[in-house]
Amino acid sequence: MKRVFFEGYDDGRTRRLIGGGRFSVVYRLYGDEQTARGMAEDICTEQTVEFPVRLLPPGAIPQEIMGRVEDFRPEPESDGRYLATISFADETAAMELTQFLNVVFGNISIKRGIQVARIYPSDGIYSFLSGPRFGVSGLRGVVGVFDRPLLFTAIKPMGLSARDMAALASRFAEGGVDVIKDDHGLTNQTFAPFEERVCRCADAVREANAKFGRKAIYVPNVTAPATQIMARASHAKEMGAGGLLVTPGLVGLDAIRSLSGSDIGIPIFAHPAFIGSYALGKEGIACDALFGTLMRLSGADATIFPNYGGRFPLSKTECLAIADAAREKLGTLKPIFPAPAGGMELRNVREMTLSYGSDVLVLIGGGLFGIGQDIVANCRRFLDEVK
Amino acid sequence: MKRVFFEGYDDGRTRRLIGGGRFSVVYRLYGDEQTARGMAEDICTEQTVEFPVRLLPPGAIPQEIMGRVEDFRPEPESDGRYLATISFADETAAMELTQFLNVVFGNISIKRGIQVARIYPSDGIYSFLSGPRFGVSGLRGVVGVFDRPLLFTAIKPMGLSARDMAALASRFAEGGVDVIKDDHGLTNQTFAPFEERVCRCADAVREANAKFGRKAIYVPNVTAPATQIMARASHAKEMGAGGLLVTPGLVGLDAIRSLSGSDIGIPIFAHPAFIGSYALGKEGIACDALFGTLMRLSGADATIFPNYGGRFPLSKTECLAIADAAREKLGTLKPIFPAPAGGMELRNVREMTLSYGSDVLVLIGGGLFGIGQDIVANCRRFLDEVK
Repeated sequence: MKRVFFEGYDDGRTRRLIGGGRFSVVYRLYGDEQTARGMAEDICTEQTVEFPVRLLPPGAIPQEIMGRVEDFRPEPESDGRYLATISFADETAAMELTQFLNVVFGNISIKRGIQVARIYPSDGIYSFLSGPRFGVSGLRGVVGVFDRPLLFTAIKPMGLSARDMAALASRFAEGGVDVIKDDHGLTNQTFAPFEERVCRCADAVREANAKFGRKAIYVPNVTAPATQIMARASHAKEMGAGGLLVTPGLVGLDAIRSLSGSDIGIPIFAHPAFIGSYALGKEGIACDALFGTLMRLSGADATIFPNYGGRFPLSKTECLAIADAAREKLGTLKPIFPAPAGGMELRNVREMTLSYGSDVLVLIGGGLFGIGQDIVANCRRFLDEVK
Repeated sequence: MKRVFFEGYDDGRTRRLIGGGRFSVVYRLYGDEQTARGMAEDICTEQTVEFPVRLLPPGAIPQEIMGRVEDFRPEPESDGRYLATISFADETAAMELTQFLNVVFGNISIKRGIQVARIYPSDGIYSFLSGPRFGVSGLRGVVGVFDRPLLFTAIKPMGLSARDMAALASRFAEGGVDVIKDDHGLTNQTFAPFEERVCRCADAVREANAKFGRKAIYVPNVTAPATQIMARASHAKEMGAGGLLVTPGLVGLDAIRSLSGSDIGIPIFAHPAFIGSYALGKEGIACDALFGTLMRLSGADATIFPNYGGRFPLSKTECLAIADAAREKLGTLKPIFPAPAGGMELRNVREMTLSYGSDVLVLIGGGLFGIGQDIVANCRRFLDEVK
């Protein structure tokens, strides 16, 4: 990002934002037209100067600092909803994902009737949010599968010993699963401590790969206390992890960015736990902007989200929009894998591949256990479903 | 926390959780009785094993791993709401705030009709979440004010130069404000870079304190990219910061815990930006559990929240519940300051001190500017209102 500067630093009267671009956010606003227009104007100040406009010291603040309503219109086929496109100076985001998110939805997350519908980053934003390192084609290269959806499963349930988990991981790899992740609730519990679990599972997958000629990866969960995430991720890679599972609802989206941009250099899988409150209501952040755009901007190579028809409430329309946001043109960012999940069974797989196409990670967890005692055979049936 | 272990590690059949305590969460469930009972049972597995109970390998998983419904009843004076108290094994939380939050509300954040109403930590949880370092009495000691509400304001608006900000900070301190924070949107923008801003503002407050015999503190915003938070906080203290402002919605609640437990050792102020989506709806996390209990468990010494009667939608009942959760008995954790805010003016101060009592941080930001050109005089009027 070209840094923007102000002319004149000392007298406080002549400063003016120069050279700065602007990014835009489309907000869905609920109410009659007058109310919605008022909300749009309010967002322009609430998210930036957070100060009554009439009290702004004359000349002291560059006009460009404030949000600007670029477009305002009724939402087509809606009843009492408006779409306001508001632009913000790149410089307000300070080249930080955290502050970018704060401008997009900080204080207004506490106001009613506002939803982030869509985010349009600018070149300035892309200069520090360059997105995934691997994306769809990179992850396909890692697991060596180019012509079909990827198979994705989870080591579970919580409570198994690390040894039992490794045995499961081995069977998954033997049976043909491409990406084998920890259940997202596995962190560093005494019954399967992080180090023992990651070491055993990574070894198990490596051995199965060698024995059966496969390139499956083991993806441990590195969601952890703030000061331990990077160390766990780094250690996981040393032990043989082929990717990292992160839950940004618990550790912040910036944890994904920092891992993705680090020299650890293995694919990142984002998990949706604890972040659902943004996506469920009419307010918050639209699920495609959240699970698609924001996860991708943060640097995730795959975004796990609750699929329709399972045990979570998103609609098919919402889920397809997430997949679109994961893979559509977004600056020069690589497309990423949508990973629909949550109560999926083998019988859902055809529908999933029909809906999402080939560039999808089909995640079946508990559903791989219910169809027979032989996990390897179950995985083979899973593979047959996507071929 | 006494670590819990399993008997027998290798055969996977005889392990049993021993010595472990359980923490409890009260969930508010929406629906008829049968639906709500089903939701309660579902939470017990969704938040732990995340696995169909009928498929659990016999004997391999200690029964204690799963959540347990301890109480279930209609919510008094409600129409179609139930309260389910569910206990979880301490060990599922792995002595990590992040995983504790995941057990409390991870996957079920994506389900409808569930609100975290109240959290009852156990001794095991308190062993790693020991709460604030300063709390009410500690922060009073820092600013040397023992007999009245504390005055709290923000340096704003975004767009001022660091020099102008420092001039403002000086006037606030001269006028009698006790705690002078950065506006939460100030991070490291070119117009007032972190280092220059913190250095100038800390100096300005120190000089005003010396000149006018005061003990005001300057509280810079250290909300930042994940890998920079600790460094900015540490550097801020070196430059003379008297406290730290953190927005856990952007960086995770664990950032508060890690700062509070670090050797930086200055008070932590939690800001509510970007976390509102949890608190606004009937789902999510009840605002007293979020802004009160969780901020305090994380280690915040003061919790800023949107007050009733301003520009945010919380009700008086909700705000008083937040203040209660900030100050009521919670293990041996120190009580913390509620800091109601958001569009407050001098004319709101009496009502605020009547509602919240003396142990409150009264935060007025933009409202301190509208009553006259002389900021020092405005602060004196603010002080008069709480005396």
